[in-house]
Amino acid sequence: MEELKSLASVLLCVLCLCSAVVNGSDYVKYNTGAGVVAGKLNVHLVAHSHDDVGWLKTVDQYYVGSNNSIQSACVENVLDSVVEALRRDPNRKFVFAEMAFFHRWWVGQSPEIQEQVRKLVDASQLEFVNGGWCMHDEATTHYVDMIDQTTLGHHYIKQHFNKTPKAGWQIDPFGHSAVQAYLLGVELGFDSVHFARIDYQDRAKRKEDKSLEVIWRGSKTFGSSSQIFTNAFPVHYSPPSGFHFELTDDFDPVQDNPLLDGYNVEQWVNDFIDAALTQANVTRDNHIMWTMGDDFQYQYAESWFKQMDKLIHYVNKGGRVNALYSTPSLYTEAKNAANGPWPLKTDDYFPYADRRNAYWTGFFTSRPALKGYVRVLSGFYLASRQLEFLAGKKSPGPTTSALGDALGIAQHHDAVTGTAKQHTTNDYAKRLAIGASEAEVVVSSSLSCLASRKSGDQCTKPASTFSQVVAAYNPLGWNRTDIIRIPVNDANLIVKDPLGNAITVQYVNLDNVTSNLRKFYTEAYLGQSSKQVPRYWLLFQVTVPPLGWNTYFISRAAGKVKRRKGFFLAADSPQDKTVEVGPGNLKMSFSRTTGQLKRMYNSRTGVDVPIQQSFLWYGSMVDTQSSGAYIFRPNGAQPNVVSRSVPIKIIRGPLVDEVHQQFNSWIYQVTRLYIDKEHAEVEYTIGPIPTEDSVGKEVISRMTANMVTEKVRDYRADWSLQVNEPVAGNYYPLNLGIFITDKKSEFSVLVDRATGGASIKDGQVEIMLHRRMLADDGRGVGEALDESVCVRDNCEGLTVRGNYYLSVNQLGAGARWRRTTGQEVYSPLLLAFTQEKLETWTESHLTKSTAMESDYSLPLNVALITLQELDDGSVLLRLAHLYEEGEDAEYSTLAKVELKKMFKGKSIKQLKEMSLSANQEKLEMKKMTWKVEGESGKTHSPVRGGPVDASTLVVELGPMEIRTFLLKF
Amino acid sequence: MEELKSLASVLLCVLCLCSAVVNGSDYVKYNTGAGVVAGKLNVHLVAHSHDDVGWLKTVDQYYVGSNNSIQSACVENVLDSVVEALRRDPNRKFVFAEMAFFHRWWVGQSPEIQEQVRKLVDASQLEFVNGGWCMHDEATTHYVDMIDQTTLGHHYIKQHFNKTPKAGWQIDPFGHSAVQAYLLGVELGFDSVHFARIDYQDRAKRKEDKSLEVIWRGSKTFGSSSQIFTNAFPVHYSPPSGFHFELTDDFDPVQDNPLLDGYNVEQWVNDFIDAALTQANVTRDNHIMWTMGDDFQYQYAESWFKQMDKLIHYVNKGGRVNALYSTPSLYTEAKNAANGPWPLKTDDYFPYADRRNAYWTGFFTSRPALKGYVRVLSGFYLASRQLEFLAGKKSPGPTTSALGDALGIAQHHDAVTGTAKQHTTNDYAKRLAIGASEAEVVVSSSLSCLASRKSGDQCTKPASTFSQVVAAYNPLGWNRTDIIRIPVNDANLIVKDPLGNAITVQYVNLDNVTSNLRKFYTEAYLGQSSKQVPRYWLLFQVTVPPLGWNTYFISRAAGKVKRRKGFFLAADSPQDKTVEVGPGNLKMSFSRTTGQLKRMYNSRTGVDVPIQQSFLWYGSMVDTQSSGAYIFRPNGAQPNVVSRSVPIKIIRGPLVDEVHQQFNSWIYQVTRLYIDKEHAEVEYTIGPIPTEDSVGKEVISRMTANMVTEKVRDYRADWSLQVNEPVAGNYYPLNLGIFITDKKSEFSVLVDRATGGASIKDGQVEIMLHRRMLADDGRGVGEALDESVCVRDNCEGLTVRGNYYLSVNQLGAGARWRRTTGQEVYSPLLLAFTQEKLETWTESHLTKSTAMESDYSLPLNVALITLQELDDGSVLLRLAHLYEEGEDAEYSTLAKVELKKMFKGKSIKQLKEMSLSANQEKLEMKKMTWKVEGESGKTHSPVRGGPVDASTLVVELGPMEIRTFLLKF
Repeated sequence: MEELKSLASVLLCVLCLCSAVVNGSDYVKYNTGAGVVAGKLNVHLVAHSHDDVGWLKTVDQYYVGSNNSIQSACVENVLDSVVEALRRDPNRKFVFAEMAFFHRWWVGQSPEIQEQVRKLVDASQLEFVNGGWCMHDEATTHYVDMIDQTTLGHHYIKQHFNKTPKAGWQIDPFGHSAVQAYLLGVELGFDSVHFARIDYQDRAKRKEDKSLEVIWRGSKTFGSSSQIFTNAFPVHYSPPSGFHFELTDDFDPVQDNPLLDGYNVEQWVNDFIDAALTQANVTRDNHIMWTMGDDFQYQYAESWFKQMDKLIHYVNKGGRVNALYSTPSLYTEAKNAANGPWPLKTDDYFPYADRRNAYWTGFFTSRPALKGYVRVLSGFYLASRQLEFLAGKKSPGPTTSALGDALGIAQHHDAVTGTAKQHTTNDYAKRLAIGASEAEVVVSSSLSCLASRKSGDQCTKPASTFSQVVAAYNPLGWNRTDIIRIPVNDANLIVKDPLGNAITVQYVNLDNVTSNLRKFYTEAYLGQSSKQVPRYWLLFQVTVPPLGWNTYFISRAAGKVKRRKGFFLAADSPQDKTVEVGPGNLKMSFSRTTGQLKRMYNSRTGVDVPIQQSFLWYGSMVDTQSSGAYIFRPNGAQPNVVSRSVPIKIIRGPLVDEVHQQFNSWIYQVTRLYIDKEHAEVEYTIGPIPTEDSVGKEVISRMTANMVTEKVRDYRADWSLQVNEPVAGNYYPLNLGIFITDKKSEFSVLVDRATGGASIKDGQVEIMLHRRMLADDGRGVGEALDESVCVRDNCEGLTVRGNYYLSVNQLGAGARWRRTTGQEVYSPLLLAFTQEKLETWTESHLTKSTAMESDYSLPLNVALITLQELDDGSVLLRLAHLYEEGEDAEYSTLAKVELKKMFKGKSIKQLKEMSLSANQEKLEMKKMTWKVEGESGKTHSPVRGGPVDASTLVVELGPMEIRTFLLKF
Repeated sequence: MEELKSLASVLLCVLCLCSAVVNGSDYVKYNTGAGVVAGKLNVHLVAHSHDDVGWLKTVDQYYVGSNNSIQSACVENVLDSVVEALRRDPNRKFVFAEMAFFHRWWVGQSPEIQEQVRKLVDASQLEFVNGGWCMHDEATTHYVDMIDQTTLGHHYIKQHFNKTPKAGWQIDPFGHSAVQAYLLGVELGFDSVHFARIDYQDRAKRKEDKSLEVIWRGSKTFGSSSQIFTNAFPVHYSPPSGFHFELTDDFDPVQDNPLLDGYNVEQWVNDFIDAALTQANVTRDNHIMWTMGDDFQYQYAESWFKQMDKLIHYVNKGGRVNALYSTPSLYTEAKNAANGPWPLKTDDYFPYADRRNAYWTGFFTSRPALKGYVRVLSGFYLASRQLEFLAGKKSPGPTTSALGDALGIAQHHDAVTGTAKQHTTNDYAKRLAIGASEAEVVVSSSLSCLASRKSGDQCTKPASTFSQVVAAYNPLGWNRTDIIRIPVNDANLIVKDPLGNAITVQYVNLDNVTSNLRKFYTEAYLGQSSKQVPRYWLLFQVTVPPLGWNTYFISRAAGKVKRRKGFFLAADSPQDKTVEVGPGNLKMSFSRTTGQLKRMYNSRTGVDVPIQQSFLWYGSMVDTQSSGAYIFRPNGAQPNVVSRSVPIKIIRGPLVDEVHQQFNSWIYQVTRLYIDKEHAEVEYTIGPIPTEDSVGKEVISRMTANMVTEKVRDYRADWSLQVNEPVAGNYYPLNLGIFITDKKSEFSVLVDRATGGASIKDGQVEIMLHRRMLADDGRGVGEALDESVCVRDNCEGLTVRGNYYLSVNQLGAGARWRRTTGQEVYSPLLLAFTQEKLETWTESHLTKSTAMESDYSLPLNVALITLQELDDGSVLLRLAHLYEEGEDAEYSTLAKVELKKMFKGKSIKQLKEMSLSANQEKLEMKKMTWKVEGESGKTHSPVRGGPVDASTLVVELGPMEIRTFLLKF
């Protein structure tokens, strides 16, 4: 009778599991309070959100969460929800980096929320890492911009939270610069720097020999005195695979309620331990970091913390490893306690390749117009802050802050890099323009005010009447002579110095390329056609004292003046095979037949270098790995020479000789040699790059010197390089320039913006000036780098104009030219204009003056890189020694700056030496000590300036030293 | 000299907008505290998340947020983040409906969070609407199930928050039943019910004449005494287009910071007002509701509230309309204050079509196996709770709660409807099986305990030894005689009653269809092949007292017994054209040639109805609108007749005559006529439905009576129907059955589960029994309703077995059969088995008894629909009057139940009459009054029972009345 079972039982008892109904409480209080446990593998969970200050969307779109069809991202949500999540459990921690975003959020919060956040920061639950305005790029940024944007963020943190970030958090930038290590790291008081992107071959090697974590000494000059603990992540800045917990991620949550379906605690604990052991296998000690976050994650922070709470609770319950909420600072402390020794790293982490054939060396040049604009405004910002300080900051009133904000944002690793979408790039440019326009008001009113003999507020309104007054301001600490050029229509002008003496002028016709460009772009960007295009450039030489100004007066000559020498000089009629140009010491010879540069010769030094220059372009690869905004990948063919023979038009004059060359329909070059300069200024105009042949093009200028140089190629100091991109893999970011030497001479090139460059063959230097492609390179931006400009429906590729500077020097003397000229290029004279009669103006104004004592000047090896009045009235001063140790026989020495002489008529009441970002006193900065492999005892001590005596106020600077002070007057 | 402008100025002043740098605070305290403002258009923002208790994912997956690749949804996040969001601003409000989810969440919360939530509920910031365990379907649910699941939720709310929901919130179910209005609305103390889904033609008409909002009187019996304010939404339960604010939505946030890009407050305010005016145009007064939510929204609630805060603030600042945080209750109060008059609505909102050709009448039948399982367990749950109460609830110990929970979930409008994905459906079945298996333990131990002559705990372990004891429990309030059938292998058995008398038995061979089915399904679901398949059914008649049991003993006969009459009767050999079957009063005649049913004849009443029955199938449309889980859309062809001629096999016996008919290879039918019943029980076995011809099939049984019936077709009371689906548009949900009448007779069909049915032609009734399709109908489930079952790789379509019941009655007498038999079908006898010697058993047990006084029985027009011991020891009792007013001459009258007699040996110490879900005292329920158009003065008063006298304890029930009591014994 076995079958005599209840029918009901057959029906009903299909599955006899535990009851699914819960009447009691399932509340589990998770034990999340673990700290470091000695003797166990410690998994440091670092909760973070990587928030690009603009990329696929603009910074404001990212903040407010608009334009989500492009990317679902809202930083306001991140911060809102992180604060709530941190308040739910005092053990939870979170690190945040980008103050441009934090600031946007903070100002919108209620006093109650602000108070909550202060408590979270005080309790170290919320920690600022990096703490700059953005997470700056390290390849295409000027070091002054990096300092400025970091200072902006650090100042904000100090002001609102009285905190100083301790960890560098450069997780996303595309390779890393040694400058970051010794300057934007150690000098900020950082104990560590953390990042994800290093070359894939380098990473593989480092995983093998457990050298992802190193002690990095970025400066040859400073060596071990400026070292930093450096943590390159084993995979990326995201969590181990499977440990992503964003609300929108498709993950199987840790399900620890046995009364609900899918209980999976054991599985999660096992997966956690597996992932931890995998990482422990490439790590030297028993501390590993998990970067628990990703791009714009934590929009609903609880989604992450809930899982991490459970993982910490159950993993630690198991006891096999120890999981804890941590931060980069806590992690670094643990590493420091582990006591090493650590591998040593000295040079850059450039260039970066994330896989075979994928060298991120395209972005060194991408969007050269933006890069140029950023660089111009960087110098302008430096100068305008000087003037703002010198004339006294106005409140309320136009200030330089908007420009500081815009420049801070522009240093982001998807901004100046040229790797943002076009609409975002437009937003960066707009912000810069807005900031600059306000700063311009500061400049003109400050100059006017400074120059005015009247005092007080009356100086704020510059008059606007009659004859043309040009005031030139010199932001450098040295006296300076330059030739300035002003567009005019009238060929009948005279220029007088403040004493009323007429000075030499030279007219140069505006070439057609320039006037056409001006017409098209005026219409494209201002929406109206240019009514009057200037016909001439008026050139004259000005001399301006350090941190001072001088005034020149332009007026119409009485009656028609004779054409003076230097006016409208046509090209010489050919006789010799070559033609030599240059009104000063530097001469350049060009072939009359091919138009090509043949030689550079300095008549003062006797240096004579045969040198040839041409334009070429690489065809861009279109493939599974295309060339694009990030990646430079030529299509394998030899670069195309644009023109082997080019017409040459020479204009000679008393101030400048110009060589005009149209290389093809879209490349125009003007080489200028000035009477008072020993270098050539080369102005290139490139574009629209044609793409009708469906080939993207990456345009270089290549200079081939007849020199036996020894540039190292296809080599990495840290591993044996497997070459798969012989060109792209040798490109390097040029921020200031590049030079090559042989046993006699140096050939130097300075650039006016960030640029990619290389020396692919001995004696050769190439710099990439413009790029236009038709494919995306698959790194997220999702657009081909195909910049264009439109007048109504008529669109064409963007034309870019810029300068580079060439010099030949005796071996050992090039540095001096590069350092000094580099400063002049970065900080051109600032011009201001008004109309007034010469006599009226000179009666009411100081026509020439300086903020320093009249006979004082900074040493030539020192630059004033920041002079800025802060909101609280204190003044930020940064002085930089420009030379490496041993770089120049005369200048690589201890330099002295006499502050009393520098600030004429102002009395320094207080002086505090500060960290680089001025958020802590230098005296109070503590350095961790680290053991380095194979090293015992003490190493070489660099020359550094001593403490500043409060009575003499003399600042000493050793080679490469940058010293930061807060002054009160 | 116009051109003598600053070069810098051309460069820099591209756009001169306001400064983007903010130093101060942008904090805006939003004024969100608006209430109703008289004289303005009030926009009630009702924040809600519509959380299906299973659909594309299982209920637990939805709760914990797993399986997100199917649908990103996590209700834990919803509740977590809603609580945080509500705490941020005391003006914010949120309504929540599904207690199955809320309960899962609540038990996992810390005491602190629980306390916060209590405060939010007390402050009416968090309001429970509907408040059932799920948001039940209204078409395919038994009314007892709806009551039970609502009671489960309401009890939970009462227990934890001491609150009673006031608003019906049936926003998603696919059409609405009048029962919902008068029973699951008014009787719960709801003032209003709100929903989205009504026929698109109906909606268009109602928008035109502003009758989306009505007073709904769902019961003819109760009329205005059970009316409810009903709000059908103008579009859907989502917000107006553009006002979706989920984190993952691509919306442009309200950007009110003028210092950031994209300030858009005016645009938002204008859009808000436009949308409000659009809705005001279809609304009678100046209150409109915006349902601010959608499926599984508010995963990060702040994302919604932040936008709503701003909208309320800025819209109200503008002053043109008034926006406020509101709830359905507040909205209904405002409507009530507006004072009407309102349009009247009386009948169902069925069937539902959301567009042309899209009648949601498929789900009336979809997944008939699940529907059958739910119905079986519903009756079992009712009975098992009776036994649990009668034997005394054990704690700890197996209970019926898990079954209650599973059934509560199964009533969800994507569960029993058959519109969930297959894996979710499996989960519902699993939960039901788990719950039932636990309840089965309750049943057997309770019965054993009740029957035992021992007292106390000793009764809990039923013995398990020797001869077969069958205890039958009768959950009905009436004495009852039924024939039970038990599968056996031994043809040599005798059955004795408690007095030891052998009673009549009948054996029926297990047919091949059944034994093959059993083999296949045992292997498919238990993973093992069935070793022994029973060979026979053993039938015998049992008599069981109301709420009582009786015991029968089965044993092997001593020696081989002779084949008695009724044993293995083969079909009669044919002589006449027709063959008549039926051992009792009801006779059925079948054609000997075609096998078709010809006639039903009741020898007692003389009712004689010519009637034909056949199986047919509709081919499913595959098109832009396919037939699917929700939608029934035949492909336009006439339905295919399965067989016009079918073999017939007749088995006759003393207890039952059976007619076996194999209509085709996949349809088998057994018609049974029992000695003691005046109806036919028709068992159909349908499947696997073949789809090799790529045609989905929807199988019906059609009965054609020779009756001049007047079924109204192609008609809607509320609007002039545009017919585009002449079949699907006339389908109606059958929960109990369907009947047709002519001037003499009634032909009734009762179903054993929810089923779709129709009367497409006069005299015809069709019921849809099974459906199998190959296309999805595009309403979200994303699967074709193609149920299959597999043994290893051998899969075939699901076979479904079920019963329906046929009866012919004199005009006016059908109700009595339908009501009584309906109760018997819903509440079959419960059987329990053990093995013991008859003598041993009878010595130690009460073999026959009742919980009531031995001669007492409930009136035949009253059913006991709930008898359940609650956790606090109080007892929930629900009595239902089964008849409508005027439905039956004898039974549609006031009925009386004597509670003292009903509970023998127990003393009722307290009795409180409660609302239907027992969450408030009946006395304290207040009804809103509503003016109805064209109506003045008082309307007809229904008969209702009076208050219960505490000493006599007699409960009166008027027609259709359901009374709910809490008792203490």
